[in-house]
Amino acid sequence: MNTIGKILTLTTFGESHGPAMGGILDGMPAGVDIDLAALQRFVDRRRPGQTAGSSTRSEQDRVEVLSGIWQGKTLGTPIGFIVRNTDARSQDYADLARCYRPNHGDYTWEKKYGRRDPRGGGRASARETVARVVAGGIAMQALDRLGITIVSRYLAVDADMMECVRAEGDTLGGIIECSVKGVPVGLGEPVFGKLQAQLAAAMMSIPSVHGFEYGDGFTMATKRGCEVMDLLVKRDDGTIGTVTNHSGGIQGGISNGEDIVMRIAFKPVPTLLREVPTVDCDGEPVMLQPRGRHDVCVVPRAVPIVESMAALVILDNYLIKKTNEL
Amino acid sequence: MNTIGKILTLTTFGESHGPAMGGILDGMPAGVDIDLAALQRFVDRRRPGQTAGSSTRSEQDRVEVLSGIWQGKTLGTPIGFIVRNTDARSQDYADLARCYRPNHGDYTWEKKYGRRDPRGGGRASARETVARVVAGGIAMQALDRLGITIVSRYLAVDADMMECVRAEGDTLGGIIECSVKGVPVGLGEPVFGKLQAQLAAAMMSIPSVHGFEYGDGFTMATKRGCEVMDLLVKRDDGTIGTVTNHSGGIQGGISNGEDIVMRIAFKPVPTLLREVPTVDCDGEPVMLQPRGRHDVCVVPRAVPIVESMAALVILDNYLIKKTNEL
Amino acid sequence: MNTIGKILTLTTFGESHGPAMGGILDGMPAGVDIDLAALQRFVDRRRPGQTAGSSTRSEQDRVEVLSGIWQGKTLGTPIGFIVRNTDARSQDYADLARCYRPNHGDYTWEKKYGRRDPRGGGRASARETVARVVAGGIAMQALDRLGITIVSRYLAVDADMMECVRAEGDTLGGIIECSVKGVPVGLGEPVFGKLQAQLAAAMMSIPSVHGFEYGDGFTMATKRGCEVMDLLVKRDDGTIGTVTNHSGGIQGGISNGEDIVMRIAFKPVPTLLREVPTVDCDGEPVMLQPRGRHDVCVVPRAVPIVESMAALVILDNYLIKKTNEL
Amino acid sequence: MNTIGKILTLTTFGESHGPAMGGILDGMPAGVDIDLAALQRFVDRRRPGQTAGSSTRSEQDRVEVLSGIWQGKTLGTPIGFIVRNTDARSQDYADLARCYRPNHGDYTWEKKYGRRDPRGGGRASARETVARVVAGGIAMQALDRLGITIVSRYLAVDADMMECVRAEGDTLGGIIECSVKGVPVGLGEPVFGKLQAQLAAAMMSIPSVHGFEYGDGFTMATKRGCEVMDLLVKRDDGTIGTVTNHSGGIQGGISNGEDIVMRIAFKPVPTLLREVPTVDCDGEPVMLQPRGRHDVCVVPRAVPIVESMAALVILDNYLIKKTNEL
Repeated sequence: MNTIGKILTLTTFGESHGPAMGGILDGMPAGVDIDLAALQRFVDRRRPGQTAGSSTRSEQDRVEVLSGIWQGKTLGTPIGFIVRNTDARSQDYADLARCYRPNHGDYTWEKKYGRRDPRGGGRASARETVARVVAGGIAMQALDRLGITIVSRYLAVDADMMECVRAEGDTLGGIIECSVKGVPVGLGEPVFGKLQAQLAAAMMSIPSVHGFEYGDGFTMATKRGCEVMDLLVKRDDGTIGTVTNHSGGIQGGISNGEDIVMRIAFKPVPTLLREVPTVDCDGEPVMLQPRGRHDVCVVPRAVPIVESMAALVILDNYLIKKTNEL
Repeated sequence: MNTIGKILTLTTFGESHGPAMGGILDGMPAGVDIDLAALQRFVDRRRPGQTAGSSTRSEQDRVEVLSGIWQGKTLGTPIGFIVRNTDARSQDYADLARCYRPNHGDYTWEKKYGRRDPRGGGRASARETVARVVAGGIAMQALDRLGITIVSRYLAVDADMMECVRAEGDTLGGIIECSVKGVPVGLGEPVFGKLQAQLAAAMMSIPSVHGFEYGDGFTMATKRGCEVMDLLVKRDDGTIGTVTNHSGGIQGGISNGEDIVMRIAFKPVPTLLREVPTVDCDGEPVMLQPRGRHDVCVVPRAVPIVESMAALVILDNYLIKKTNEL
Repeated sequence: MNTIGKILTLTTFGESHGPAMGGILDGMPAGVDIDLAALQRFVDRRRPGQTAGSSTRSEQDRVEVLSGIWQGKTLGTPIGFIVRNTDARSQDYADLARCYRPNHGDYTWEKKYGRRDPRGGGRASARETVARVVAGGIAMQALDRLGITIVSRYLAVDADMMECVRAEGDTLGGIIECSVKGVPVGLGEPVFGKLQAQLAAAMMSIPSVHGFEYGDGFTMATKRGCEVMDLLVKRDDGTIGTVTNHSGGIQGGISNGEDIVMRIAFKPVPTLLREVPTVDCDGEPVMLQPRGRHDVCVVPRAVPIVESMAALVILDNYLIKKTNEL
Repeated sequence: MNTIGKILTLTTFGESHGPAMGGILDGMPAGVDIDLAALQRFVDRRRPGQTAGSSTRSEQDRVEVLSGIWQGKTLGTPIGFIVRNTDARSQDYADLARCYRPNHGDYTWEKKYGRRDPRGGGRASARETVARVVAGGIAMQALDRLGITIVSRYLAVDADMMECVRAEGDTLGGIIECSVKGVPVGLGEPVFGKLQAQLAAAMMSIPSVHGFEYGDGFTMATKRGCEVMDLLVKRDDGTIGTVTNHSGGIQGGISNGEDIVMRIAFKPVPTLLREVPTVDCDGEPVMLQPRGRHDVCVVPRAVPIVESMAALVILDNYLIKKTNEL
């Protein structure tokens, strides 16, 4: 349940205020050059305190690779890694242990397991995403070698606005548009393993995500067939492509060689820096006081997370594709 | 790759113009009453020719259950079933074998596998969904027994409009809103198995789907935290619930007991009933003549498909939940 | 649970006296030539009534392929198939419904699921193996193309002996030795997916199997290291091989290019043709009268089953191997 | 591939001379008391230098649990753990990098991945089993709570003999008999997931194992049906049991409540403490000089490994069993 992928699989562990977060990336092909310094820089992009609107928690997030990479190359064995939790202030959460914060997983988690680690949200904390970024960063270095690149941007979130919202103790959501370029034709598995289904599952598993679409997405629903037809043409180099890309690079569940374009919608950060009414574990009303260190908006920090999930899905499908012929 | 689910798994097979479609639903608990006549009626809802805007292909779609149900009850063994293809007019597709239809999987499929069955779209045809509806109908009967119900409606598609679009040889998309009521608290698996991630993957695997959202979905991205806060309250019966349901029944990836509400966006049917320019397998331009029997809009027929996928995911997670305590 | 394999997966269904047995073989590469007449002949080798010591039940076991093969070649899509049950005499089992036969799954099955289909053993019947042989026969045709062949022989079972045992109403077990020749170096996955672990699981899943060993097997346990050392040498063709093959073609969980040699031990058929004391579902003593049509010894009929399981495992690992490098 | 289990899954990582070994045990139910000191004692049983015949490498093997256990109880979240490699003398292996040791995975591993970590056998080293023992020890504590216990003994290996063999620079194999007591009726999944198939896969994945059998095992093959019939009786407490246990506690792939009894055969340690001829990576003959610290016989140290694998399989199936009814 804490695993994603088919051939290239990532399994993660870690509670926000436990000793460490970590994971195992299994199924990486052997002989891939991995630049650990570049990996650390990629992971740093997700770190709190790097961008406007982010939490002031200042984890160093130093990646410790424990296996699977030797002399700068992958061995084909599982890549185990950890990232220590060094700046956890659990006392901030002591009196939250009996309260259910609205729009968090506190209540659902406790009902599911009969108990929960309340410190910093435990495993439900977005801190778990650090393990995704470590694994995604490794996958991205492999994709690089294949000429596949991932670029993202966020829509409608600007730094000035965030400061004003922070001042009010409120929070914001946002949308990330992610494009994968250079994907070969033929990735994705019909029927249940369509490329868009795998990408959707990967993106919807990121904390706070409430929507996913690819190509023209929801606007497709209001269009006529003739308006969204991606006509096929022979290109100068002899290959076949499409004139437009309403389909977002995927047709019939399989990549068609055009850019894969998707948009991922994030809800506003659920922790406000103002008093919020809620209930405790007996259902009695209580007021939550603002505390902890939280993002006003996770979208800027979420960019490397989105890219990591895209990288893991694309590389996994690249490997699966190799088994389509004898 | 043609399998979905963890404990309750569905594996399907079948090409549009082959002898039969079918599947195996494995992991169904034993002792569940199954009404095969009611199952047939549910499957009939997906059949062409039942609703405005649908294809005139008139498959009988008679479900033949081959195992796993005996004396009206499930045995705990895999439920194998087939649905014969009886009205396939393969000659309609003979000259399509060398052409790639735009917005279809023809080109991508051929590049992936080196070959494809062009008759009726082969495995890429939406006809594969008949197996989903058989399995989903069985799952729904089990959910019924648990007091869980699924209701759907489609947004912004009306029958008159569809006739006018048909006359122009054009097609339409649409949106289905699906709600699951009576879901107990605690379904869904952190981290990668969040309930919304599983539902998204299931829905995005349906042919023609381009977007998925739950709760307030994409509009969440434009709201402030204070506007979408689902405050918790103690209900008269002593249970805890939320005043509003912006979160769509899921928090932290786990159901919270409120209705699970999601919306699924379908692109317009890609086959127009008018001439369309495209290329053949050598990349040379050709004109596709209108032929075959196609839907103007799949949304009405897609309702039982969406409900089936929801039923399979919810029942699977209901079973997984049982393993959370010793 | 009714599925085996990683990339190449087989899922089966069917009760002994239900309408049909069947399965879905998913993950077969595209473009593989399949000779359906040869497949039928291979399946016939498992059929009752073909060999000394076998049941007189005379199923025709006609394989009906429903998808995935078109114009004599695989499509890359799942291969769905069924084999009808045509000679089921359920009345033979009517009074067994309340009894637990010793050394059968009657009691365990009923405790597990709360109920069972008593007709012919239901899903616990060795008749389920017909689906394995269909899938295995297809896999074997793919292996053929790769120069990989499977040969088996059974040890210490002769036809005369069987007739004498049958006359006494008794039954026999036996051992099958199976060798896979022409396996390339490098198949098998450390750590839990060692080739011997996958082969053992596949063989031990065959009804009546009680033991598995490869290479020198159990005798290895009584030897000294110097006695079982497979020394490495350079062959005339420049490749590296071993002088002896105590290791049975697998070292470190990975094939080394030598013949893979394994032995599989079958218990005697548990249904005797004589009166046997047992208990009914209330635990009361009853005498089982001999009835039904049963094998004296399954070993001759089990040969194609063993070969089928070997073929499925080897082909699956051949495909996985392709993903070891980028 | 480095994962085992269905609901309760263990994924491991680590090279013998890398920074650490480790793993993630996912799917552990919440609320189980875990005694970490007792866990450490269990892990110590596998440690080199504890028993006659074992390597003199003196790892401390201190278990560091990084997540999933809080305040002495499991959280339901994945249990991540590491064990540092502290006494690795890689220089011992420097000149082995170009040689293939007979009866090791050196040659197969290099052919599979194109490269390998030669230090201490890399991932192919039996040191990987430390992660199995950590996870198995946790599973065993859960089984304890359910009244399920595991006991083992080794056959035909005595300490005196081992010293004499060590003096000759030779090595020994052996057999471990493992019994699981108190297993409820109904564990195990037909068809491919038979309990014996899962146990066989788990045991055959342990380095050096060459054979697996349960109940009367290979001797079953030479018996008549009437000799191995486990007759059913009603016990004084009203439950049904068998008079004998030739079947080793499993019938039809499902546990029957009797002791599960299995035997696992280990080959002799492949590293001799004497000169051994072999080839280098060019196929040229070389003499391997004795070096490193190796066991004369792994069987005593393998006992907790065998028990760990048994515990993981049994607990996993205990959890799966919960999903058999709605």
